[in-house]
Amino acid sequence: MALANENYLRIPEIYCFDEVEKKVNAHRILNPKADIIHLGTGDVTRPLPAEVIKAIHKATDELGHEDTFKGYSPPQGYDFLISKIQKDYRSRGITIEKETIFINDGAKSAIGNIGHVLGRDNIIAIAEPVYPVYEKATIMSGRAGTLNAENKWSNIVYLKCTDENKFIPELPNEKVDVIYLCNPNNPTGTAMNRAELKKWVDYAIEHQSIIIYDGAYEAYIQNPEIPRSIYEIKGAKKVAIEVRTFSKTAEFTGLRCGYAVFPTELIAYTKYGVKVPLIELWSRRNSNYSNGVSYIIQRGAEATFSPKGKQEVTEIINYYLTNTALVRNELTLLGFEICSGVNSPYVWFKTPKGISSWKYFNDLLYQKNIVSIPGISFGSAGEGYMRFTGFSSRENTLKALLRLKN
Amino acid sequence: MALANENYLRIPEIYCFDEVEKKVNAHRILNPKADIIHLGTGDVTRPLPAEVIKAIHKATDELGHEDTFKGYSPPQGYDFLISKIQKDYRSRGITIEKETIFINDGAKSAIGNIGHVLGRDNIIAIAEPVYPVYEKATIMSGRAGTLNAENKWSNIVYLKCTDENKFIPELPNEKVDVIYLCNPNNPTGTAMNRAELKKWVDYAIEHQSIIIYDGAYEAYIQNPEIPRSIYEIKGAKKVAIEVRTFSKTAEFTGLRCGYAVFPTELIAYTKYGVKVPLIELWSRRNSNYSNGVSYIIQRGAEATFSPKGKQEVTEIINYYLTNTALVRNELTLLGFEICSGVNSPYVWFKTPKGISSWKYFNDLLYQKNIVSIPGISFGSAGEGYMRFTGFSSRENTLKALLRLKN
Repeated sequence: MALANENYLRIPEIYCFDEVEKKVNAHRILNPKADIIHLGTGDVTRPLPAEVIKAIHKATDELGHEDTFKGYSPPQGYDFLISKIQKDYRSRGITIEKETIFINDGAKSAIGNIGHVLGRDNIIAIAEPVYPVYEKATIMSGRAGTLNAENKWSNIVYLKCTDENKFIPELPNEKVDVIYLCNPNNPTGTAMNRAELKKWVDYAIEHQSIIIYDGAYEAYIQNPEIPRSIYEIKGAKKVAIEVRTFSKTAEFTGLRCGYAVFPTELIAYTKYGVKVPLIELWSRRNSNYSNGVSYIIQRGAEATFSPKGKQEVTEIINYYLTNTALVRNELTLLGFEICSGVNSPYVWFKTPKGISSWKYFNDLLYQKNIVSIPGISFGSAGEGYMRFTGFSSRENTLKALLRLKN
Repeated sequence: MALANENYLRIPEIYCFDEVEKKVNAHRILNPKADIIHLGTGDVTRPLPAEVIKAIHKATDELGHEDTFKGYSPPQGYDFLISKIQKDYRSRGITIEKETIFINDGAKSAIGNIGHVLGRDNIIAIAEPVYPVYEKATIMSGRAGTLNAENKWSNIVYLKCTDENKFIPELPNEKVDVIYLCNPNNPTGTAMNRAELKKWVDYAIEHQSIIIYDGAYEAYIQNPEIPRSIYEIKGAKKVAIEVRTFSKTAEFTGLRCGYAVFPTELIAYTKYGVKVPLIELWSRRNSNYSNGVSYIIQRGAEATFSPKGKQEVTEIINYYLTNTALVRNELTLLGFEICSGVNSPYVWFKTPKGISSWKYFNDLLYQKNIVSIPGISFGSAGEGYMRFTGFSSRENTLKALLRLKN
């Protein structure tokens, strides 16, 4: 009798954001003429940078000729891309060995799959509210323990981020083994500065913990006090995996490319305390669970590091940051309480009069034809909050803000 | 203390085929002028079909304009591709619901990840010799049990394929819960006919087992007695996942696209025997561990189903099949004992005078500058055998055969 992984039955059948999509679709069917604007989506909308398009065309044509055809990618990724990533780190004063950079098809699968090289019996720390995949992957892989009456898991330590701590996760009282940190954070848009992040690195060194550092939004960091990489913090290579993606940086959500860094110094342990360099396990996973990332996509990603590519990427980021600033300013004028900083494409704000996230989601959708993301989608600590983003077009952003005003 | 998944320490650090690559690289460094021919590789070498290139160019240009830009793919894949796959099945008399087809980035990751939706305590049947990923993924995910003195795992039932059973896996004496079948098989090139496959489907129905059916080489099937899909067998939808890929069919090893079918009838069980439609678990995995497959690659895959695309694909398959026939014929003339059929790109043959796989690999490399794959890479039952493939160019194939002759 084939047994199922019953841990999968412990998460809701529907992915949190699908619920939003379902409600929007129903609204569209009932109101076919409604001009619905997405102001909450985490997906990008600008055209792909011209340099990326050029590079993909060129690479595609190479595949049309016997002499330049490419089959399987090297499992870890092509050197042409890895070298550019290494150089990019170096330009910020960080030395990363090429052998420790692994190209993948995006941050979501990398973050989920990293769990697979870790033991079952780790205590996991997850900030809340946060990107739901950290918790869901923990549950699905059987690491979450048992569920209590408050819908919380025994092996997960939830790091509540609220007004009181300015949405910056604080060190836990109990010992934790694996820590997910998203910086700048999705959905709150807050970003830890060096001193705040250093506390976590020091904690991890002291407790032999591992930090899974999700830097998906590092390109949005404007404040020089905010680290662009966790490896800016002394000792971080001993304790941190850094995950990055071209998705939100260079419009790659539909192309799929990212990378993860597993420093050779990064150690996990067997139950008897024997040290295991985690990169060795990740290499094995890579060889046995993957045949690499598309050549033409890797060429596209490489193009984002050329002088012209970088300029295009900067323009896109600035476009979204301007949208985000417009949203923040208008919400402030309208008297909303806003919690996020200026280093992210997200605006995290309180619902008016403390109504629930879903209630306010419905109000915005049915009365203003605006799609938001209810804060509770990111964990119970998100109740009473909403997420807007700067990822719409300028035109739609302004139109939505006008609707909010009226 | 962050714990590692110690199951990863139970497999060799080096992926089996990397050992081949290492030896070839060393030989190349020592003999820089040697004209080394790969006659063992499983990677394709023909240019990408022109229709695929055209489709990728078009899709890439779409991403350059705001109005036609695409962000995240639907998690399950785009309807334009799923519809074509459904139609392709229908053209062979098989009805597959669109909702049960999941686009992925290739067969290797799909096969590994499928293990994640299954319970830990299944008894797994794996043919041998076979594609090494089935066993490795079983070990890494902690399902293999304990290792015995013969290097075999207690929770894996090895279905030895030898001369005696004509390399066709036979039903096991013990009860197994999950069965990996590769048909046509890599590396032996043998393919079960309908009657032989029906035995397995009937077995799985009787024992409530699940078959993970790897159909990566279905496009090479020439004999109408050999099923192109397991769903040609009555009842298979209740017990089989079918995995397919565009890799060996349409030169996609470097592009990355495949698909898996999870019929709604396919059932796994909780420990208490409660039925769980496996598609529900796979959908959850898909939503939480993946952001879909690249839009432009899915458009490329779609193009393989157009009339012109199909014709190009057929020409490529015929090219490789002709190479394979040339290899088979020449080896036969040279007195080698050949075991594989005509429905695969692989030629599986005995080493001369019963010498070991690695010894003959070395002989071929050092004396003839020919790269083969030692049969033992596919499990201990492969000792004394070698794999050649039809995936080289015609010119190199003929050149290598001439070297073998002389």
